[in-house]
Amino acid sequence: MTSQTAPRGIRRADRARQVADVLRQQIHTGTFDTALPGESDLAAEFTVSRNTVRDALALLRDEGLIERAPKVGTHVAQRKYDHGLDALRGLKETLRGHGEVRNEVRAARRITPPPAVARRLRLEPGEPAVYLERLRFLGDLPLSLDLTYLVPDIGDEVIARDLESNDIFALIEELGGRPLGSADVALEAITADAHSAATLQIPEGGALLLLERLTKLEDGRPVDLEYIRLRGDRITMRGSLVRPIDSPDWRLI
Amino acid sequence: MTSQTAPRGIRRADRARQVADVLRQQIHTGTFDTALPGESDLAAEFTVSRNTVRDALALLRDEGLIERAPKVGTHVAQRKYDHGLDALRGLKETLRGHGEVRNEVRAARRITPPPAVARRLRLEPGEPAVYLERLRFLGDLPLSLDLTYLVPDIGDEVIARDLESNDIFALIEELGGRPLGSADVALEAITADAHSAATLQIPEGGALLLLERLTKLEDGRPVDLEYIRLRGDRITMRGSLVRPIDSPDWRLI
Repeated sequence: MTSQTAPRGIRRADRARQVADVLRQQIHTGTFDTALPGESDLAAEFTVSRNTVRDALALLRDEGLIERAPKVGTHVAQRKYDHGLDALRGLKETLRGHGEVRNEVRAARRITPPPAVARRLRLEPGEPAVYLERLRFLGDLPLSLDLTYLVPDIGDEVIARDLESNDIFALIEELGGRPLGSADVALEAITADAHSAATLQIPEGGALLLLERLTKLEDGRPVDLEYIRLRGDRITMRGSLVRPIDSPDWRLI
Repeated sequence: MTSQTAPRGIRRADRARQVADVLRQQIHTGTFDTALPGESDLAAEFTVSRNTVRDALALLRDEGLIERAPKVGTHVAQRKYDHGLDALRGLKETLRGHGEVRNEVRAARRITPPPAVARRLRLEPGEPAVYLERLRFLGDLPLSLDLTYLVPDIGDEVIARDLESNDIFALIEELGGRPLGSADVALEAITADAHSAATLQIPEGGALLLLERLTKLEDGRPVDLEYIRLRGDRITMRGSLVRPIDSPDWRLI
């Protein structure tokens, strides 16, 4: 099982996964426009059997990325959009040029925040917060369901503004007259529960990126805590990482 | 549906999601050690009904994060580990101090890479690549399934080394006598197909983080293209993002 040198017979499922991963990346980067090459062409390109190509395409179909039909062939079903891991940007800023982001505001009101939320926003016990819930669309399809907790001084002003067509980030910066500073982010993959799936118009059990983001002003004060469910079939997070110079595994030999 | 000012009656599922998101973050940051507070305590803390608390805990149980049993109560099932979005690190470096990372090598051999892979590694047509497939464990449980394509000059040397206990990054740096430079990364949420799920020992349809990473040497030469499936219930990607100074949404008012 752990031999390094003698390759074991690679099963078809393993090869299908290899093919699917490369095709997925090609689809995201627009290699195919809309139609994918035929099964024989793909089999030749990847030097695998047509059965393996079919298995690979089935994986991508199950992810909602492509559609397949007899005679019509294989087409890209879902264009995925890139969200940056390199800089702090709102969804509307990010998708500028790809279409209009529209927000359905499901809640916008003062609340008494749970103690764990209050602590992260550095609120005193008993101090209110402003809670916002938005279902965000690009075109006709939902992209994300965003739960937002704002500190009260900023939140009170934000909810008086046009929340349907603006990023919260833009509103905070406009109100404060200063840019935001930075954010701590955590990204996880979770499956959609029935209610979140229905809200985001995906099958129950579909994959979601859950982004937790604590955003701070330039002076380091945390003002905005968000829990964002992004549709896995519509968003890819992209960025670049640099090797740290003090890497403990790096040693001159 | 889009009123900003009049909050609609918030349904129980919406409240359960709010509670679950805050609890999830508390679990990840170690707030509860192993046992969660009882339902009544949580209901009081979040000012919601016990039924809502039960729904929230059911969501976290379905994600594999907690276990619930009569009389025993609610316990943290799965410790999640943080993987950095701030710097380029291998899994073993990242998890230093959390236990031993062990790699089951499923394939390690020269291949003729698919043209799309060859292009990203800047290989000439017909030039070989080295393909590696590893199932990576922390303790007894799989963490990730990694498909790796290496340029041949580096790959040939890497597969002659101990792949079971080393990060590829460390081997590349040791062999070349130079640190790596940077990597382009793309992160997606996908559901596990039957075969990937069985390999990673999770239920079929479970959530995976798919990390595509193209790693370059200091001089910018791409040498290592990876497709990494990380178990969604075991890994959180964390980092911090800075607001770009040239943000088009930022304007002095």
